[in-house]
Amino acid sequence: MAERLVLWGIGGIPEIVAGDDLEAILSHAIAAMAAEDPDTALADGDIVIVTSKIVSKAEGMQVPLAARDLAIEEDTVRIVAERAHAGGVTRIVETRQGLVMAAAGLDTSNVPDGQALRLPRDPDASARALCAALRRRWGRRVGVIITDTLGRPWRVGQTDAAIGAAGLQLVDDLRGGVDANGRPLNVTVTVVADELAAAADLVKGKASRVPVAIARGLSRLVADLDAPGARTLARLGDDDMFRFGSTESWRQGYAAALRELAERKEKVK
Amino acid sequence: MAERLVLWGIGGIPEIVAGDDLEAILSHAIAAMAAEDPDTALADGDIVIVTSKIVSKAEGMQVPLAARDLAIEEDTVRIVAERAHAGGVTRIVETRQGLVMAAAGLDTSNVPDGQALRLPRDPDASARALCAALRRRWGRRVGVIITDTLGRPWRVGQTDAAIGAAGLQLVDDLRGGVDANGRPLNVTVTVVADELAAAADLVKGKASRVPVAIARGLSRLVADLDAPGARTLARLGDDDMFRFGSTESWRQGYAAALRELAERKEKVK
Repeated sequence: MAERLVLWGIGGIPEIVAGDDLEAILSHAIAAMAAEDPDTALADGDIVIVTSKIVSKAEGMQVPLAARDLAIEEDTVRIVAERAHAGGVTRIVETRQGLVMAAAGLDTSNVPDGQALRLPRDPDASARALCAALRRRWGRRVGVIITDTLGRPWRVGQTDAAIGAAGLQLVDDLRGGVDANGRPLNVTVTVVADELAAAADLVKGKASRVPVAIARGLSRLVADLDAPGARTLARLGDDDMFRFGSTESWRQGYAAALRELAERKEKVK
Repeated sequence: MAERLVLWGIGGIPEIVAGDDLEAILSHAIAAMAAEDPDTALADGDIVIVTSKIVSKAEGMQVPLAARDLAIEEDTVRIVAERAHAGGVTRIVETRQGLVMAAAGLDTSNVPDGQALRLPRDPDASARALCAALRRRWGRRVGVIITDTLGRPWRVGQTDAAIGAAGLQLVDDLRGGVDANGRPLNVTVTVVADELAAAADLVKGKASRVPVAIARGLSRLVADLDAPGARTLARLGDDDMFRFGSTESWRQGYAAALRELAERKEKVK
């Protein structure tokens, strides 16, 4: 039989609150499922894909709604673009986790009333801790991805992506390899971690209580615990061609021209 | 057992050339696999995910390398951003298919020497034709996605996305729905077609000859043949906050300021 990739969701996870031992709760839910279907017990090469929301909750990243704006400000490294509309202002920012997201990833869905939820402070560290604990308990070499839902330019809607990872090779770097005709594959760096996050979203659910999925069939990607994390997927430096929104950049250029002319006049005087 | 999503690649597909009957070749490869493993025969609710490259080849979208620049120009609706570097100029453009891609999607990997490959002219129409023919032959209600590999701002590398689709619901629109706490899910439009394209890439392969995958377990997404295609996933109008690269927008703003000042001087005279 052909190599298969199989994904399934882990349900039966209770509402997570600050201080919860996420690994213990996850392992309990996985064991409960495995009691009915032994195939689903964690195996070598499995990849455990966890919605960041429950990581944030366990880590106590909830803030009162009244403190939402302050939290966004704290979590923002740089405003990338903003736009006013009927419902308020959409502000796309670079977060301190190296992500570009609306409202610095602060979220009010699936959060208790009157609360907003910040991203995990360091999703790679969270993934590493979870991965180490799962490996210890199960004695299996597994990988961990922590996901969040990201919008993207030029296309409607959102897809899930990897914001934290541990024990996993995140990219299939095909540069330097050859295609089926033996010609060099120049530019392809497939970000398998994001593709796995997206795949897992298809069996998890935003409207249901299935915040975790397991992917089986890609054990070749599972790596040592200290493999580079999802932070390495950020590209926010000089090679970022979309460092600011079009309107923001336009205004910067406009202002620069006025400033230059003013300086020139100054010199003429 | 929990609901599972299972994906597998379809190998044994020969090099595709212009004029090939892609459906017949695909069905032959699927039937050959099913002869060894009956489970893999097309079933109701299966989603067939096809790399655009073989669609382009079947449709004769190859051009001589010498005509590459002309083809890019023809396929470009708008230059979004460009940047010179050691290897030449990277030009990100909006294609006539409504995609934002480097080099209008023209590709030289896995293409015979001296050739470049354009995108399918109308990937949704290609998907519709393939989906109709597969449904006719197999008597099964299947969906079809045509994929390509897209870069994205702010993150390294590429992931696969849906550039054509038929017989499939492409988005899970959760707006108006409620979360597990009964609170409104305001903004989430999950683009399941892109998540499926990404998932399929994990069992296909750029360096191998596995250009097709089948996904099973999401029959709820399979729809009538005339469901909206992937073209509807483009968001390239006034609500696109990244209509041009930062440098391009900056220059536009700079030029606008100079123009305004020149006009003002004109009036003063």
